[in-house]
Amino acid sequence: MSKGRILSIQSHVAFGYVGGKAAIFPLQCLGYDVDVVNTVNFSNHSGYGRFGGSRASAAELSQIFGIMEQNVLLHPERLLTGYIPGGEALSAITEIARKLRNGNPQLVYLLDLDVSSLQRALKTLHEEYHVPNVVISSIPLRKWLLESLPPHLQPPTGYRDSDTDFLLCIASSSDSPLKGDSLSAVHTRYIPCIPGYFSGVGDLFSALVLAHYEPSKSPTASVNGSIHPGTEETTLSRAVSQALTKTHAILSLTHRYAAALPEEDRQPTDEELDVKEPERLVRRMKGRELKLVQGQDIIRNEAAVDHKNMDWWVKFWKP
Amino acid sequence: MSKGRILSIQSHVAFGYVGGKAAIFPLQCLGYDVDVVNTVNFSNHSGYGRFGGSRASAAELSQIFGIMEQNVLLHPERLLTGYIPGGEALSAITEIARKLRNGNPQLVYLLDLDVSSLQRALKTLHEEYHVPNVVISSIPLRKWLLESLPPHLQPPTGYRDSDTDFLLCIASSSDSPLKGDSLSAVHTRYIPCIPGYFSGVGDLFSALVLAHYEPSKSPTASVNGSIHPGTEETTLSRAVSQALTKTHAILSLTHRYAAALPEEDRQPTDEELDVKEPERLVRRMKGRELKLVQGQDIIRNEAAVDHKNMDWWVKFWKP
Repeated sequence: MSKGRILSIQSHVAFGYVGGKAAIFPLQCLGYDVDVVNTVNFSNHSGYGRFGGSRASAAELSQIFGIMEQNVLLHPERLLTGYIPGGEALSAITEIARKLRNGNPQLVYLLDLDVSSLQRALKTLHEEYHVPNVVISSIPLRKWLLESLPPHLQPPTGYRDSDTDFLLCIASSSDSPLKGDSLSAVHTRYIPCIPGYFSGVGDLFSALVLAHYEPSKSPTASVNGSIHPGTEETTLSRAVSQALTKTHAILSLTHRYAAALPEEDRQPTDEELDVKEPERLVRRMKGRELKLVQGQDIIRNEAAVDHKNMDWWVKFWKP
Repeated sequence: MSKGRILSIQSHVAFGYVGGKAAIFPLQCLGYDVDVVNTVNFSNHSGYGRFGGSRASAAELSQIFGIMEQNVLLHPERLLTGYIPGGEALSAITEIARKLRNGNPQLVYLLDLDVSSLQRALKTLHEEYHVPNVVISSIPLRKWLLESLPPHLQPPTGYRDSDTDFLLCIASSSDSPLKGDSLSAVHTRYIPCIPGYFSGVGDLFSALVLAHYEPSKSPTASVNGSIHPGTEETTLSRAVSQALTKTHAILSLTHRYAAALPEEDRQPTDEELDVKEPERLVRRMKGRELKLVQGQDIIRNEAAVDHKNMDWWVKFWKP
């Protein structure tokens, strides 16, 4: 009846779709009960130039978690954390993550990453930090990276005029039979860049990976991952394929909407002009807020979209 | 593409579905962009016995509204307010409601009501306070009220064993051609009671009335209301019919879920025992949280439900 319960600890903005506002609605659409603890309560995201409101203190967060614990309301199967304001609040949340993990070793915890050196980073995360599943959501597909990809995983040549036209998404699962004698099974997929900067995309993507990560759906399920028999998918690559497909479709919808706005609402970034006329920046930001509500059919698999399936990068570790 | 923008100023709870948590997701499902200002950030609703967190100060709310105004982000077509913590915060929100109304005379503003003497109350609201649309969501259908209803608006006699088995919902629209030479067009509908106390039902109902109130959909639309040609409906009665239908279906779903829980999770209310053992109360409350996420098909008109249509009470004013 319910897909389970997710505890989301993220920033809140009154207007627009970043942080919790980019994550909670999609998770609810996909059938999850979401418990929502707001780390900040702001008017809008900082990209607008002017923003305000309040940050939750560590004491406030601890009080909320404390009472939820007393009331036996702190038993999510999954945890999603985003922006955390300051070191003390971070400690309060780390403490909660630790407690939840102790109470439930199968807890699925998703938090953001950002790397430069691919193999070394993955190795460190898997081996030193014992993180079984790592997703790198978007690396610019520059020449060095493009050339290291097996040909069938590269974008079609006709579309490759510039080296910044594509991003690469990578999923690495160290707890999967597919990995063979390697450190992990690595899956990858290129995605065409959508021009312009859109806020909340990462928050949406993370939420969708979490929502679609379903170890229990596979007959060969283990704690953290599994393969789907007859396919070269892992539980992780499957979730990331879904998340990529939907995030890209929502972003395309937003982009089409933004492109159809009157000219004054889509002035290009120009720091000098933006400072002189703050409304210029505001109008641009407003036009680029994610069209989550309008694209809810995409989130619920009810719209025809272009699928972005992750493929197994068989020789990632031994090229 | 979008049904428009609603500003929701309500309480927030991390766990469960009351206030904003009972209203925002349904509004989003129905296609509205919802701007969310939290008046409190609590762990759970007060019915659990133990609850905690913080209330937004008037200064904090004013700052958020101030920046949204500066950023030209404060132009909702509709306003929904719920629990407001204290007099100063109330002033800040009243000020915002006034400003929004000045900027947009067609603003649809929904706030809660509670009355004892029906005609007098409706007369006062329509005439003295110039509120064109009034909804009284649930009056116990006691003998005096039952007997004043025209027979075709009464519940079928076979189901009327006790005088507390039904509630009556009343919608009164003073701005509708249907009213003839009366003060307003009054519509009504009985609803079977669902035993037990469920929190957030009023918040959900209010949100659904607001979402389904669509003056622009009628060819004889006026500012605040209209009739639908060939029917005896007003814009208001139509919205309330939808809200009643969906709220009742969600409540039935929640009730069925709660009834299927293990016995220790559905102990009846007993103040003495509840005080002695707080977990007893907590378990009951938890089992009665609205099944909004699980019932989202109901909200989106995608589930078969028993329709609760409001009927015109033609002689309400001149019985």
